[in-house]
This record gives sequence, structure tokens and C-alpha cells, in this order.
Amino acid sequence: MAFDKVTREQDYSKWYNNLVEDADLAQHSSVRGCMVIKPYGYAIWEKMQQELDRRFKETGHQNAYFPLFVPKSLFEAEEKNAEGFAKECAVVTHYRLESDPDKEGKLRVDPKAKLEEELIVRPTSEAIIWNTYKGWIQSYRDLPILVNQWANVVRWEMRTRLFLRTAEFLWQEGHTAHATKKEAVEETRQMLEVYAEFAETVLAIPTIKGTKTESERFAGADDTLCIEGLMQDGKALQMGTSHFLGQNFAKAFDVKYTTKEGKQDYVWATSWGVSTRLMGALIMTHSDDEGLVLPPNLAPIQVVIVPIYRGMEQLETISDRMEPIIKNLRKRGITVKFDNRDTHKPGYKFAEWELKGVPIRIAIGPRDLENGTVEVARRDTKEKQVLELTDIENKIEHLLEAMQKEIYLSALNFRDNHITNVNTWDEFKEVLENKTGFISAHWDGTAETEDKIKELTKATIRCIPFDNKQEPGECIYTGNPSKERVLFAKAY
Amino acid sequence: MAFDKVTREQDYSKWYNNLVEDADLAQHSSVRGCMVIKPYGYAIWEKMQQELDRRFKETGHQNAYFPLFVPKSLFEAEEKNAEGFAKECAVVTHYRLESDPDKEGKLRVDPKAKLEEELIVRPTSEAIIWNTYKGWIQSYRDLPILVNQWANVVRWEMRTRLFLRTAEFLWQEGHTAHATKKEAVEETRQMLEVYAEFAETVLAIPTIKGTKTESERFAGADDTLCIEGLMQDGKALQMGTSHFLGQNFAKAFDVKYTTKEGKQDYVWATSWGVSTRLMGALIMTHSDDEGLVLPPNLAPIQVVIVPIYRGMEQLETISDRMEPIIKNLRKRGITVKFDNRDTHKPGYKFAEWELKGVPIRIAIGPRDLENGTVEVARRDTKEKQVLELTDIENKIEHLLEAMQKEIYLSALNFRDNHITNVNTWDEFKEVLENKTGFISAHWDGTAETEDKIKELTKATIRCIPFDNKQEPGECIYTGNPSKERVLFAKAY
Repeated sequence: MAFDKVTREQDYSKWYNNLVEDADLAQHSSVRGCMVIKPYGYAIWEKMQQELDRRFKETGHQNAYFPLFVPKSLFEAEEKNAEGFAKECAVVTHYRLESDPDKEGKLRVDPKAKLEEELIVRPTSEAIIWNTYKGWIQSYRDLPILVNQWANVVRWEMRTRLFLRTAEFLWQEGHTAHATKKEAVEETRQMLEVYAEFAETVLAIPTIKGTKTESERFAGADDTLCIEGLMQDGKALQMGTSHFLGQNFAKAFDVKYTTKEGKQDYVWATSWGVSTRLMGALIMTHSDDEGLVLPPNLAPIQVVIVPIYRGMEQLETISDRMEPIIKNLRKRGITVKFDNRDTHKPGYKFAEWELKGVPIRIAIGPRDLENGTVEVARRDTKEKQVLELTDIENKIEHLLEAMQKEIYLSALNFRDNHITNVNTWDEFKEVLENKTGFISAHWDGTAETEDKIKELTKATIRCIPFDNKQEPGECIYTGNPSKERVLFAKAY
Repeated sequence: MAFDKVTREQDYSKWYNNLVEDADLAQHSSVRGCMVIKPYGYAIWEKMQQELDRRFKETGHQNAYFPLFVPKSLFEAEEKNAEGFAKECAVVTHYRLESDPDKEGKLRVDPKAKLEEELIVRPTSEAIIWNTYKGWIQSYRDLPILVNQWANVVRWEMRTRLFLRTAEFLWQEGHTAHATKKEAVEETRQMLEVYAEFAETVLAIPTIKGTKTESERFAGADDTLCIEGLMQDGKALQMGTSHFLGQNFAKAFDVKYTTKEGKQDYVWATSWGVSTRLMGALIMTHSDDEGLVLPPNLAPIQVVIVPIYRGMEQLETISDRMEPIIKNLRKRGITVKFDNRDTHKPGYKFAEWELKGVPIRIAIGPRDLENGTVEVARRDTKEKQVLELTDIENKIEHLLEAMQKEIYLSALNFRDNHITNVNTWDEFKEVLENKTGFISAHWDGTAETEDKIKELTKATIRCIPFDNKQEPGECIYTGNPSKERVLFAKAY
């Protein structure tokens, strides 16, 4: 453990990077822009996966797996999608290495093993999947297709940040096919609701659900829905998207079905995804200058017990006393670590588990043994209390439940205090720079104005919230008429 | 559903391909050599993953994730390993596409976006992982490192077969680092035992555990242990390997640690893996001319209930009667499908679930309702029996348990009848061609003889079984002295 301590106030970006590396979540690799997800970070990602996967299955989806590579001719079939990703594509051109005749023991690409058609490493899988669905769909009886895949994807990024923007990342991508537009629209919305509920109850992150403007849409979509979170530094982070793809991919790959009435029609599509980016959202929503703060529902270790002792005899007495309690906690499905390492002092252990965000720390020393008590410390508020051992399992279980809720409420409170209604351009700039957060302001609905505001302030329209109040006004920048406010923010 | 029926006797290879495609397990994709794993096939793979992952964690391993790409300079660091995989490597050379000036709406590789150093799509991850471990290991306190990763890998294959040999496949690869040779050797053996126990109790496949000859070793290993299964056509299939890597990768990547005594030493390594190839082993061990046969422990649907009815009223009566039974079965953790599709006749449904290998089929019609009975059919033996509904849940649960064991015993019996002791070269060829299976024969221990036998007969040495009887004899081919028999077979 080594936490190169920079406070959030001093340098938020450096604080983030240090935390990710020092809490053993992830690190940069020798491959430009690609990260190594370390065991502790991966254990948190696995918890996210399990929770999401259960929700996908409960809503009728099945997992499958499609190829990593997309032949160029398939990739370019849906033109808007291809154009949107073309600049970020890793391309496989050869399939063999050979000994380098000029350098003993070294290899070079075998020029004779050039592929006839280049293969794109998937930046997203609509093309390869819709090319496959063509063979799966003949009639309305074959619909809907409700499929998800857990996979790695590659988008070549020039400026990368651990979890937030990496050349390779892990994600899930749902790809569904429907007989009617209505059903596809409903699916798009349903999956966004699944993401929002997951963010709220598991990640303890409040999100704003809404629709992207045309300029911010997924390439190839007719509509993109999103959930937006707010980080502690006042910047927004897009946490998940759900796309209504219309018949665009069905047309590009000629996927038609026979309707009940015997007619031929193109199939309607959706796709939706969340990625290891959620790890970044998690860290930047809850953590503090001492390190990670994990909501109990996501913590690989929920309770750590640190014995305070001199000599092996005292340690053994403490171990004996705690053993049945640990067993009982585990029976309740609570993950407990008894940190009896003799190589480190309690102070070191306290700092280490604080850095790693373990929700509850229990300390127990000789005096506690005499008194029948333990010291229980919450990671989120850093409150400590001395509790009697009687019925301690119940107390811990309730505390974990309470913490999950309070961590969420604390984030919700921060977020709600950072949505500011703004009516003038000066105020817009002022709030954006100083108060930060979401700005609710009128916009004239044109891409030109959106671009101009982005160019001048780096703020983008994060979304038009669902069920947005219809309220006539004047565009914050042009003064032209507007029918509703939209949410601006600087974003990751 | 459409099962293009070819019997195993007629054409085993075609039977296999038809089964994989028609039972909705996997299909070929538009990418040369890459497969699509369909939802039903993927559900079986997920069950394998869960069972393996639990075993890895119980033996102290943690999951992590390492980059898909390996820079060429890292890839070639361990020369034997690099040489072993060089001919099968997909190589990324560019990171961008651009509009093709000659073809409207098409893309081409941007020649300006050529990588300075080529990236290899991982065929296995020792190189990238040991390059990472270098930063994780300073002292004996950092050891052991017990890490596993679930990932996709790419090995360019010229002749591919669904699940058995594909350019991209899914697998897990464990990579461990140890302070002593003894510990690494024990880990290598432990993980092979984990694989063998998993194969036996989950896949219901008996395996032979043993050591590979030097020629059949993993490139870069000092020793390769394996489990070998026997398929119905008498060919062997390597189902999993566990490698003792010595200090080869530690030396190639300069990974040293400080011992307790303050000295510097290279770290000892293992790696071990199983892949979607296990799906092939599963299919070819148990299935029959009617389709897939799944051991209950792996079946995504363990029990299917097919109502036999005329008119909606009868269907409703049957549904009402079965509802509490279905609930009770699910409470016991048994997965049940009530196939009430009105679009298909019972005969069609029977054939479909037979093709998909559902272990138990329950049929219930009006007469059964009167008699308080159901017809229960086992997929493996095709035995049918009429059972009273009283306590049916217990009967089904016991039947599933019995089937799991009997499917294993049936495969074990077949396997044991196909291990033949052979003492002459003529007999060797005769058994190999006609009886098939494993041949236990003396071998003089040289790679030359091994190669020659392979060249002449296509038989390879599958392994030298653990605890092999030491028994002097004469090599089956050269007549030179031999100290033990080894197992030969034709193999996938």
C-alpha cells in the first residue's frame, strides 16, 4: 500500500489517478491506452456484472457471443455507424509472424500473410450482430430477439484515463430485434430504466434520465437515451446509453421478416450498453481524500476486523472471541476479512482498508474483550462508536443497509444542490466555472448553438430529461425562442 | 428447429457439425474461422464458467483482466513461447480508417495511421502478464500471486471446426507466481486436479491425467500436465492443460524477488487453461443420433413439461395441475420449462427438446389427469415410465441425480473398454484403425520415434499417465528398451 496523497481540492485529476492505482483497482499497461484491471478492481466489476446480468435475465434477455473481428465490408455497411467509429479503429492486416532475418531471435510481420480483407477489432458490434441476425429472422415468430453479450471492445483513444477512457474496455452490449417500432421504443426505455435502477440501488449513484440531442446521438441511432451522473468535481459523466436504432441496421443488412399478415417488413432494433467506465463513476461519486468509499452492495469485503494486541496469546484470545461472530456474519451473506497479519501494525491496516473503501471496520483490543465491546467505524462518515458484542451481527447488518441508503442520499443531495436554473449567458458562464454541476437553461434547439456553446465553454447538453417541463423561454446564447430547458454541463 | 439428420455411423464429423448448428449451440460467422456462440450454447458455457470460477476462488485465486494486445517486443521476449505461437498471430498494424477517395461511402485503412510497433492479438497472455507482474513483485511477501482471467484469445487456424478449433475462442487462463519451485509444481498439479474433478462431476466426462512428452509441451513450459478425454469415435481430446513454466518467463521479463534471507532470486511460474473446446468434448462424449445429451448439472433447462391437449380448456386444466409442481421443482433449484406453445404439436416439441438434450421430459395429457400420473422420459437412455404425481418432485430430483451419475458411468465404461494394451506394431496399427481409442504401448522415449509414429499413423502420445506403472519393455516401433507404457491415440 502506498497512497501518494493529493487532496481532491489540490488536484482532482491527480487524486483520481493516484486513488485508482494505490487502491489496487487498475493500472496502465505497456500497451498504449490499455489498462490492467487488478484483482481488487476486478472483484468490484464482477459484482456490477452479476447485478446487471441478473436484471437482464429477469427482463427476458439471454447472453451470447459474437466475433471480436468485423470484416471491413460489413463494418462499413451502416454508413453513419461506420463513419462515427472509423477514426478509432484498430485494424488487423496480417495473420502471421516470421523470424526476422536481420535480427536474431526477433520476429517480424510476415509480408506473405496479408489478409485479403482487413479485420476491424470491434468498437461496437451492431454490424457483426445484424449480419448474423439476418440468418436468424424469417418470420414474426422469430421475434423478438433479446440478446446481450459481455465483451471487450477497442476504440483507439489519443487521450486516455484509467476506467474513464481507455483504448480497450470491458462492457456489455444488448442487441435486440423487434417486429414493431413500438416494441423497440419500449425496449429502449425499459433498459434505460434497468440501468437507472441499478445505478441507484447498487452503485448508490443518482442519475438523470433523458434523451441526447441529435449531435450527441450514437452513430447509426434514431434516438439515444442516457443516464447522467454528477461527479464530485461538478462534471457530468454519461453512465449508460440505450439506443433506438430504428430500421437502420435492418436496412443496411437487409433483415426483413414476414408479418402475421404475410407482408415483408424491416426489423426494428435497439442496442444498449454500460462499461468499466462505471468504475470511474463509482470512484468519483463517493470517494474522499483518504481513498475509496464503497457502497456495501458493491464491496468485495464489507467488514474488516482488525485485532489490537500484544503477543500471540492476546491475538488468539481475540480470534477465539471473534470466530463465531465472523461465522454468523458470513451466514447472513456478509463478506468479512479478519486481518490478523502480524507483519503490519493496526494503524497501517486502518489506513489500508480506508484506502480500499471497506464499509465497516471493527477494531477489538484487550480492553474491549474485558468490556464485551468492539469499536465500529464507518468508512463513509468516519464515525466511530463503541458497541456491545451482544447481537453485534444484527447491528452490523443494519448498519450496512443504512450506509447503502445514506451513501446514496448524500450523493443525491450533492447532485440536487448542483442543478442550477440559469437565465442569462453571463450567469451561465459564472455558474459553470464556479458553482459547476448541471445547468438547466433554455436552448434554441439548433446544432449550431450547441456547438458554439461547447466551443466557448466546453459545456455540452447532457440530455433533455424525460417528462421535461414544457416552458417557453429564450435561448441562453442566441435569445431565440425555446420551448424547454435542457441540462448543460462540462463532462468526462 | 431443423436437424439435418446424419447418424454418427454414417459420418461422425458431419453429425457433429449438424448437431452444433441445429441444437442452437454455435454457428460459423462471416469472419473466417470465428464462431458465433448462440444463446443456448452460451448458457451451457456460462454454467461451466460458474462451476470453474467457484473452484478457482475456493483454491485462493482471484480474477483480473489484462490487455487484449501484446506489443511485438514483449511478445518475442520469451523466445520459445514466441516461436511456438508466431505462425498463428493476428497482427494489428493500423489504428484508423478513412474515407476511400476512390469509392463513395466506403472506407480504407489510413496509411498515415500506422503503428510504430505492431500489436499482437493475444494467443495466450504469459508475455503481457509477466511484464505486469514485474511491477507487482519485489519481495517474498508479494508471493504467491494467484490470478485468473476469463478472456478471448486468437490463434489463426487454417482448418477450423466449431468449438474444437476456432480462430477466436473463449477461455480462462490462470497465471501464478511463486517463491519456490516446489510451490509452483504443486500449484500446477492442484489445478489439473481441479480440472479433472470438474470434468468428472460437472461434465460427466472421465479423464486421464498425465504428463505431456517434450514435443507436445506448451511452448515455454518446462512441463505440461493434461487431462485427456475419449470421444465416441475413439479419438482423444485434450480437455485442459496446466503448465509448470519454471523460471522461463521470470528470466525473460527479469522478475526477481528478495527472499526471506535477503537474496535475489527469479520467480517460479505456472499457467493453466480450459476453453470453449470443452463444449466440443461435452457434445462428443454423450450425444446420440437424436441430438445433444446433457448431464443434468450442465443443462440450462433440466426438465421440460409438454402438455398433450385438445382445446384451450384442457390446456388450462393441465396448467393448473402442473403449476404447484413447477413451483416446487424451482424451489429445489431445478430449472423447468413448461412448453405451452400452441403453435407446435407435441411430437415436434419432443423432437426439439431431444435435440437440445433436456435431461427429463414430462408429458401430461387428459388421461394422465384422470389417473393422477405423468409420463417421464429420460433423454440419455430414452426410457419412459408412467409415474404417479404423488411426491413427483422428489422422484424428479432423484432421477436427475441418478442420471448425472449414470451418464458419467456410461462414458467411463466406454472409455475403459477403449484402453488397449498392445505389444506389436501390427497390433498397434490394427487397434488404432479398427477398435480405436487409447493404446497403451511401450515407447523408446525419443522424439524421433514419436514423430515417426505420428507420421505413419496420425497417432500421438496423449500423455504419460500419473503414477504410471514402471514396467520394462520394448518400444512398439523401434524395439529399443522402454521403461514404461505411454498412451497413444488419434486426437482432435
